[in-house]
Amino acid sequence: MSLEAIYRGYLACLDAQDWASLDRFVGENARRNGEYLGLSGYRAMLEADFRAIPDLAFVIELLAVDPPHVAARLRFNCAPRGVFLGLPINGRRVTFAENVFYRFEEGRIAEVWSVIDKTAIEAQLGGRA
Amino acid sequence: MSLEAIYRGYLACLDAQDWASLDRFVGENARRNGEYLGLSGYRAMLEADFRAIPDLAFVIELLAVDPPHVAARLRFNCAPRGVFLGLPINGRRVTFAENVFYRFEEGRIAEVWSVIDKTAIEAQLGGRA
Repeated sequence: MSLEAIYRGYLACLDAQDWASLDRFVGENARRNGEYLGLSGYRAMLEADFRAIPDLAFVIELLAVDPPHVAARLRFNCAPRGVFLGLPINGRRVTFAENVFYRFEEGRIAEVWSVIDKTAIEAQLGGRA
Repeated sequence: MSLEAIYRGYLACLDAQDWASLDRFVGENARRNGEYLGLSGYRAMLEADFRAIPDLAFVIELLAVDPPHVAARLRFNCAPRGVFLGLPINGRRVTFAENVFYRFEEGRIAEVWSVIDKTAIEAQLGGRA
């Protein structure tokens, strides 16, 4: 299977909150932004994301596949419940991008480097920055 | 020339502040984060960046080349002079990443989608968020 197909399968797994299948896409020793999470920590992070953002959904805006790396620009349009990235969203609808790199090993995510466009969210909250 | 070689040439052009050569790498109608800049606006943005951050330098941490797209994770270690991304840096040394996508047309940058890791800078300023 191509890395692009694997990656799209990963996002479909997240959208479905199909945590029992997460090990098909995420490695046992996964790291994110320099921090060791492991598969169980990675799953706990995603579960917490969906608790904080009940209507979380992943939309690919741009994709660059250059094995072993995948880079994606994801677009979110959602209503985080409380404080998100240190910002008091409290259920307001916001839209923002995440530019994220993944390194795959043997078809699974080994490492993630994510940056979320916090500045864009601040602008939607009324120039809080 | 490969897209990777062109991209590395672009960063070398920035590091050298060789603005007379910028048109070799940036298209006449360049856009950034949804905004039309054109070549002259793009150059003005870069010149302003170097005025605000005199020791600005571009280091590639990750690169994914998937024509017509290039995605890069860039690492900065620098001392912005005053307010940067709405944060009072005032000459402190900070390190942060930028995850950025480029779409090339005929060997030149046509569009850029950049996200800078503001949260990481805030953490270095003492948890201002």
